[in-house]
Amino acid sequence: MPDAPKPLVGIVMGSKSDLPVMKECVELLKRFGIPHEVSIISAHRTPGVAREYAMGARTRGLELMIAGAGMAAHLPGVLASWTTLPIIGVPLASGALNGVDALYAIVQMPPGIPVATVAIGSAGARNAACLAAQILGLKHPAIAQAYEDYRREMAHSALPAGTFEV
Amino acid sequence: MPDAPKPLVGIVMGSKSDLPVMKECVELLKRFGIPHEVSIISAHRTPGVAREYAMGARTRGLELMIAGAGMAAHLPGVLASWTTLPIIGVPLASGALNGVDALYAIVQMPPGIPVATVAIGSAGARNAACLAAQILGLKHPAIAQAYEDYRREMAHSALPAGTFEV
Amino acid sequence: MPDAPKPLVGIVMGSKSDLPVMKECVELLKRFGIPHEVSIISAHRTPGVAREYAMGARTRGLELMIAGAGMAAHLPGVLASWTTLPIIGVPLASGALNGVDALYAIVQMPPGIPVATVAIGSAGARNAACLAAQILGLKHPAIAQAYEDYRREMAHSALPAGTFEV
Amino acid sequence: MPDAPKPLVGIVMGSKSDLPVMKECVELLKRFGIPHEVSIISAHRTPGVAREYAMGARTRGLELMIAGAGMAAHLPGVLASWTTLPIIGVPLASGALNGVDALYAIVQMPPGIPVATVAIGSAGARNAACLAAQILGLKHPAIAQAYEDYRREMAHSALPAGTFEV
Amino acid sequence: MPDAPKPLVGIVMGSKSDLPVMKECVELLKRFGIPHEVSIISAHRTPGVAREYAMGARTRGLELMIAGAGMAAHLPGVLASWTTLPIIGVPLASGALNGVDALYAIVQMPPGIPVATVAIGSAGARNAACLAAQILGLKHPAIAQAYEDYRREMAHSALPAGTFEV
Amino acid sequence: MPDAPKPLVGIVMGSKSDLPVMKECVELLKRFGIPHEVSIISAHRTPGVAREYAMGARTRGLELMIAGAGMAAHLPGVLASWTTLPIIGVPLASGALNGVDALYAIVQMPPGIPVATVAIGSAGARNAACLAAQILGLKHPAIAQAYEDYRREMAHSALPAGTFEV
Amino acid sequence: MPDAPKPLVGIVMGSKSDLPVMKECVELLKRFGIPHEVSIISAHRTPGVAREYAMGARTRGLELMIAGAGMAAHLPGVLASWTTLPIIGVPLASGALNGVDALYAIVQMPPGIPVATVAIGSAGARNAACLAAQILGLKHPAIAQAYEDYRREMAHSALPAGTFEV
Amino acid sequence: MPDAPKPLVGIVMGSKSDLPVMKECVELLKRFGIPHEVSIISAHRTPGVAREYAMGARTRGLELMIAGAGMAAHLPGVLASWTTLPIIGVPLASGALNGVDALYAIVQMPPGIPVATVAIGSAGARNAACLAAQILGLKHPAIAQAYEDYRREMAHSALPAGTFEV
Repeated sequence: MPDAPKPLVGIVMGSKSDLPVMKECVELLKRFGIPHEVSIISAHRTPGVAREYAMGARTRGLELMIAGAGMAAHLPGVLASWTTLPIIGVPLASGALNGVDALYAIVQMPPGIPVATVAIGSAGARNAACLAAQILGLKHPAIAQAYEDYRREMAHSALPAGTFEV
Repeated sequence: MPDAPKPLVGIVMGSKSDLPVMKECVELLKRFGIPHEVSIISAHRTPGVAREYAMGARTRGLELMIAGAGMAAHLPGVLASWTTLPIIGVPLASGALNGVDALYAIVQMPPGIPVATVAIGSAGARNAACLAAQILGLKHPAIAQAYEDYRREMAHSALPAGTFEV
Repeated sequence: MPDAPKPLVGIVMGSKSDLPVMKECVELLKRFGIPHEVSIISAHRTPGVAREYAMGARTRGLELMIAGAGMAAHLPGVLASWTTLPIIGVPLASGALNGVDALYAIVQMPPGIPVATVAIGSAGARNAACLAAQILGLKHPAIAQAYEDYRREMAHSALPAGTFEV
Repeated sequence: MPDAPKPLVGIVMGSKSDLPVMKECVELLKRFGIPHEVSIISAHRTPGVAREYAMGARTRGLELMIAGAGMAAHLPGVLASWTTLPIIGVPLASGALNGVDALYAIVQMPPGIPVATVAIGSAGARNAACLAAQILGLKHPAIAQAYEDYRREMAHSALPAGTFEV
Repeated sequence: MPDAPKPLVGIVMGSKSDLPVMKECVELLKRFGIPHEVSIISAHRTPGVAREYAMGARTRGLELMIAGAGMAAHLPGVLASWTTLPIIGVPLASGALNGVDALYAIVQMPPGIPVATVAIGSAGARNAACLAAQILGLKHPAIAQAYEDYRREMAHSALPAGTFEV
Repeated sequence: MPDAPKPLVGIVMGSKSDLPVMKECVELLKRFGIPHEVSIISAHRTPGVAREYAMGARTRGLELMIAGAGMAAHLPGVLASWTTLPIIGVPLASGALNGVDALYAIVQMPPGIPVATVAIGSAGARNAACLAAQILGLKHPAIAQAYEDYRREMAHSALPAGTFEV
Repeated sequence: MPDAPKPLVGIVMGSKSDLPVMKECVELLKRFGIPHEVSIISAHRTPGVAREYAMGARTRGLELMIAGAGMAAHLPGVLASWTTLPIIGVPLASGALNGVDALYAIVQMPPGIPVATVAIGSAGARNAACLAAQILGLKHPAIAQAYEDYRREMAHSALPAGTFEV
Repeated sequence: MPDAPKPLVGIVMGSKSDLPVMKECVELLKRFGIPHEVSIISAHRTPGVAREYAMGARTRGLELMIAGAGMAAHLPGVLASWTTLPIIGVPLASGALNGVDALYAIVQMPPGIPVATVAIGSAGARNAACLAAQILGLKHPAIAQAYEDYRREMAHSALPAGTFEV
């Protein structure tokens, strides 16, 4: 049996409760054929794990990380502080502020240390995978092709204009 | 005289009034040695130009686009709808809502068509360049090195902790 | 059997999931006797369809378009960019921001390309039909009359003041 | 000397302090050749004047009204309650909430009585004139033509993509 | 059988759907022994009824009005524009903005025409009755006494500090 | 020389820095001929003074209090907790949140203890005086008359509709 | 049977309905072995009880108070105004504004009288206990140790990075 | 010359531009006689410095840290993740969102790792010093006394109620 390909993308989330949303990201990465791994790492409860994970990512062959987090969502920014690989941040809608807190805590990074932020919740989880495919596709033609196919399929499933029956 | 290198990054903004902020992005791209070009294209006043620009981008050698826009900031999403290259969106703080409108209109993209969103205004303009360097650095080692140097320099300019005099 | 009248209003929504709300718009257009057609067109997944639909609208006899969309709701503005017919935009309350994102992305259009924005969700869907009746009524007396009747009926169903029993 | 044409559009604002912004609307109506008149009417201080103005508008030949107001901006909705002509509402950014209050008070109208809402402040004032031109253009070809010309001119003033020097 | 006392307070709401919340106001007015009447009047669908109701209120013996409304909640302000009696406004949490729109549309009245605004929803409905009791109590000692009793009862139902078992 | 009339209204503000805005309230009370007194009392720095002031207000002849405060604006609610007289609250726009914090902290009072809230800042300061005149006018005919005159004057200063020159 | 230890922490909430959330705070205090007492005190309905509770707290041996409150959440600030002990405030998500009102009313205290504010709702209730442990741990080594153990346990329950199966 | 006392409080800010606001914190600490040190440490640009600073703080004798930060203000939470000492967070109003982003990113910490959050900007900077005095005063009587004196002085500078001349 051949070895599984080495992961290119590390998906990280702060808590197991984030999994139902972040799973939509994982499913799309599978569809695009992007090798990946999934971790549960809290930026606040286990900062040392987050640090080691991010610092070792490039050496281990990861090319980008996707981090989903809610509330004062520091995880994407904390990973970004320990690596120079691109980080995609997914704000999750947990708690009373329904994801606005997570959005602001992820997107408003100070100059020098960006996080590529996508939409709050489920749409963002899926778009994190699409953005990863766009980025990795610059270097890996098969991934570019897989994302092109996905876009074409979305377009083809559309109805001719003006023909919808209500 | 040798030819200028072909641009890898297309910077687009909706209006000339966006230039003072977006210039901070251009300066950093220069520092990172990333060949680029700058355009003023309105998603709403010149949708045909936006469409042709995005559709032709890959063929012309661009690897990603950075779009800055304010208010109902459709420009990054409109470019994203016409290409499969990665788009980085910079929300600009024009008008009464001070950039919250632009942030929402850029980051809340529907599943399938992501925009990599950075902070509102000047911090975002600079981080768009840094994110571009991180992404292109996956493929172009010189760009990766330039961003590493920038990060190291930022870190070295820091003071030893506890020594600041007030 | 006589031909169905040619549609004056094109109702467009970004996804089938918008239908339950937008149906309230369709019902009112029927009541006002306004010929219409319904399409599902995504501004981002099928920008070419949106472009052709809007560019051909005037020639095909449409006099205005109603577009409902959620999140980073670009659809009304994208249609507006490809036509000079009036566009009515209905912000839909999908996703974590509950329609505030859609409201800002629809109403904050830049100078030159307006979208006539109505309320978020169900109230807006119904008011899009009423606004269409007001606008088309300027030219089509039967539509003006139908809206007048609707307004009179709403007023007559009111109770005399001070007589309500609790 | 020929008579001035009878006004088609009534521009109303709540206070003289709204004039600097609403003037941008007046300028564009002039450019589009749309006959108009300007009034200062407070929905709260002079509700009787607002009522008579709106009730008499159709008889006097007005085809639509544009109302600009700030804070708890009731003026557009109050006019709409007394007429069946289309009302365009411009939220103005006065007071501590910077126009968000006016936007909500104008756009969130209950079912049956719409207000066609445009952007907050200056962009909205100009777009109210553009929307008026789109609406009146359905019936008055010269106005349609004037707006087409304006759109074409905006498009032509754009630069070729990728040629901007920074 | 003696005549019912003439109402001092007119409670008005925009639609029957507001009744479950506004009923809490009615219950407290009953408890305070404040004669009152209840009406359903839409500021937008029946502006003439609202006008006559408010203009005739003082003559008919009303001393204040309580108006509950949601979304672009103009009702309290419209009543205030037609009378010089005090108006208490209750913002109701209907629609996607959950009452923030109603709060802004009620509280941000322009100088000269105030609305005494209370909390959004149920707490506000009850506090409208309490505020009415405080205001009318300045002139009607029995109402002042009833509100004093209510406050004392609330205070007495409190537990001694530090004795609560969890 | 006759004694000054005993004050009916106590105006309270949390700090001297609130005076420029609250002065607009004082000016209008003077115009309405309402006897009043002005105090600077912090709900947080001098809670004992606030308590004694509110507890003694009725005995000293005050009929209502107007309290202006910014940020976590507890002053109106704290006064309300120590008295059963009506309290009018004016949210002031100090600090980074520009008065939204003060508005929420004043208007969202729990059931039983209302604060009659008016607009943020200058408009609210003036409307606090108008609301006081409306309330006191129920008992004091001269005050009612003064407010009626003020309203009539505001209305008369309006221009005939449609005659404004731009 | 030995006497129960004298409480170091007083937990106060405005109403019994706050108990399900505040119970999470109590559970953690138990786990940390911090002696405590629980009270239900309304800052507005029973301001005298709140005053006496806070004024007597230091003498009775309390070292800090934790106050949970919703809406115009004055309780933490009112306690802080009557004592110089540290107050931890927990904003609760009751009412239409879902805790944003409570957050602003607790955190935006004026200079001189701080409230140590934690997250809205359940996360905040638990963090109030953790913050209490951190503060009391400076003086009571057993409490410091208990919080250290809690932190270590949280960290140990984490999974090795990259090993999560989806 | 005697040695300077070892610092009990570490004040940390993300950038020199935060100094004008954080200086108000330093001034008050001096007034309370609390030994302190000041550092400029970026959570994102120098995460290793932040980590070492926080991990070594207890050993070096610090008893709490005060961290001021703007935008996606991770600094207080990052320090909290590396220590079990109490952290006071001051949200600073930099950037387009004017401190709301910083407030959410500081206060909405996940369960287990609290940050004691104070007001945005200048009021918060001063209250961070007051809260530090309250906390340290539990253990250090001289600091408790200094804060008591400060509170008394604030109270004494108040004017007698009702005596203010406008």
